[in-house]
Amino acid sequence: MVNVLDNESLTTLTVDLGDRSYPIFIGASLIDNRDYLVPYLKGESALIVSNETVAPLYLDRLSHAVSGIRTSHLILKDGEQYKSLDTVNEIFTHLLQNRFDRQSTLIALGGGVVGDIVGFAAACYQRGINFIQVPTTLLAQVDSSVGGKTGVNHALGKNMIGAFFQPSCVVADTGTLNTLEDRQLSAGLAEVIKYGLIGDLEFFEWIESNIASVLERDTEALTIAIERSCRNKASVVAADEREGGIRALLNLGHTFGHAIETAMGYGNWLHGEAVAAGTCMAARLSRRMGWLTEADVERIVDLFERARLPTTPPKEIGPMKFMGLMSVDKKVMDSVLHLVLLKRIGEAVVTSEFDTQTLESCVREG
Amino acid sequence: MVNVLDNESLTTLTVDLGDRSYPIFIGASLIDNRDYLVPYLKGESALIVSNETVAPLYLDRLSHAVSGIRTSHLILKDGEQYKSLDTVNEIFTHLLQNRFDRQSTLIALGGGVVGDIVGFAAACYQRGINFIQVPTTLLAQVDSSVGGKTGVNHALGKNMIGAFFQPSCVVADTGTLNTLEDRQLSAGLAEVIKYGLIGDLEFFEWIESNIASVLERDTEALTIAIERSCRNKASVVAADEREGGIRALLNLGHTFGHAIETAMGYGNWLHGEAVAAGTCMAARLSRRMGWLTEADVERIVDLFERARLPTTPPKEIGPMKFMGLMSVDKKVMDSVLHLVLLKRIGEAVVTSEFDTQTLESCVREG
Repeated sequence: MVNVLDNESLTTLTVDLGDRSYPIFIGASLIDNRDYLVPYLKGESALIVSNETVAPLYLDRLSHAVSGIRTSHLILKDGEQYKSLDTVNEIFTHLLQNRFDRQSTLIALGGGVVGDIVGFAAACYQRGINFIQVPTTLLAQVDSSVGGKTGVNHALGKNMIGAFFQPSCVVADTGTLNTLEDRQLSAGLAEVIKYGLIGDLEFFEWIESNIASVLERDTEALTIAIERSCRNKASVVAADEREGGIRALLNLGHTFGHAIETAMGYGNWLHGEAVAAGTCMAARLSRRMGWLTEADVERIVDLFERARLPTTPPKEIGPMKFMGLMSVDKKVMDSVLHLVLLKRIGEAVVTSEFDTQTLESCVREG
Repeated sequence: MVNVLDNESLTTLTVDLGDRSYPIFIGASLIDNRDYLVPYLKGESALIVSNETVAPLYLDRLSHAVSGIRTSHLILKDGEQYKSLDTVNEIFTHLLQNRFDRQSTLIALGGGVVGDIVGFAAACYQRGINFIQVPTTLLAQVDSSVGGKTGVNHALGKNMIGAFFQPSCVVADTGTLNTLEDRQLSAGLAEVIKYGLIGDLEFFEWIESNIASVLERDTEALTIAIERSCRNKASVVAADEREGGIRALLNLGHTFGHAIETAMGYGNWLHGEAVAAGTCMAARLSRRMGWLTEADVERIVDLFERARLPTTPPKEIGPMKFMGLMSVDKKVMDSVLHLVLLKRIGEAVVTSEFDTQTLESCVREG
């Protein structure tokens, strides 16, 4: 499917959005290669925003690759709890203090949290400046850096503040995954498995067969996982950029997952972990709807377990609280909760057909 | 030109932006008329955001007009100093606490500050919800509510945080201008005069002949001024929504004006007052460029004076500070300051042709 095995190899995908189309570059050592960065800069100044975990590893290399224009950097604290309007304002302050004008570029170097914050800052600074995503986690490479969803959390709900804003390119250096903690790698796999579940049975089966290689960080297996995930996401985003329809399917497990993240306090459960447990809850509800078989549910739960991910929500969230948190989700339409559920493995639907009691007993049983 | 003389009269303009096109309704007592509001609501809930000055006057009437769906309101403090991220966050908190979902509508009832804040909140809440502008000042009716520029100030610069986000309709009730303070009416006239200066000599001459009637709030004169201003703005916005080109001409006087507003502290000089002084400064610089004659400058200054507006900047801003504030303006491109200047009355250009010394002596002389 792909042939990326050495430093010279590169896969390029395109997110097809008319005049806002952009490339995703996937390969090893791309972070050192100015050819995939410099053509996508605008203006004479760039601000690289990273966090205290990623910056020591990759900031110098990235800075070197974009040398030649005025470059500055800003290091954020690491963690979902800093994904807030306050942090975005910190970026604005840095930009203004250092006289960044409307023809500047923001570069996000880090995981999904950094990408979401920086993308939103780019969307709002002077009503929108150029930005580039350099994702360094599996989760960011397969999901959050692709598709233009940017934003921050509010104390009362995750991702409630944001914008649709597309980068000018995404540079996914597979080499950066070598420094990723095991727990973060697993969290990224939650989204990889999701793409199989919602629309790509063949990919789901590939993951079932290759999960061990992926966990061992076999370069070829990882590259296939990233490329196939991005390809799935890019085609959904191209068809429905602003989530009027099928893009909502990408939220499989996310309504349950967001409730877990909010209840546990941002940062205690990783996003991917919450999505894994949430997807298993969605699978169980799909079973109650008569769509999935018990064997399907077991197969799904088994794959998440093999990916070293949680498959049930934390017991300390009571069902009432869980239901309350779900009701503020963005998938609520005209006060009716909509969920992404599975008709079968490889086919998802957005539905409000379930009754509240069934949902509640699902939440109660975890 | 228009024939709006009684409650039954209505002028409808359209801002032509493809699938984001929207109508501007101009007329008396529109605020009471559900026909111009209800078809533009989306979903089952609306939040009316106003301020402590406007709400006592018009909130009940507007609420009554949109009765039938779940309506709530939020009253902000009055003043440019509250045009901040904190206030936007206050709106998010209210929306989340009261379970407003993505299919809700935000209605901005007030002047330009309320419209800018609420529009930006609508752009960012759950990555964008429907919104309606109900402007109640002349400035908002002729300028800020039309064209989709939304945003808030940062301590280091005015309007530095924002989004391009179009309303679903604009309802300009000319009756609301009867409660407007004289100073606010004059501030609005600064933008009205601007439209004449940048591209509509005939309108400029009409204002010269009719300024007394406008200041006396003659309904016909006011309606003509609003309609012609909106028509000018709508055609510019339709041609260049995101300010890649000619839309920048609408910023005549604004780079000087923003420096004044920032230096004096938000709210001490009204936006229109700063624009008036800034436009006179731009006219004087245009004279130094050899474009305007001394007689042109006098004619412009005279009209602003007759509109009861300042024509020089406050003396307490030193020239160094003034130059520094101008250099962070959004019209800086690749570190070069661009200004809107006048080739002649009725024709503006964006230029960086002036030399810094000439600009500085212009700033020095006020």
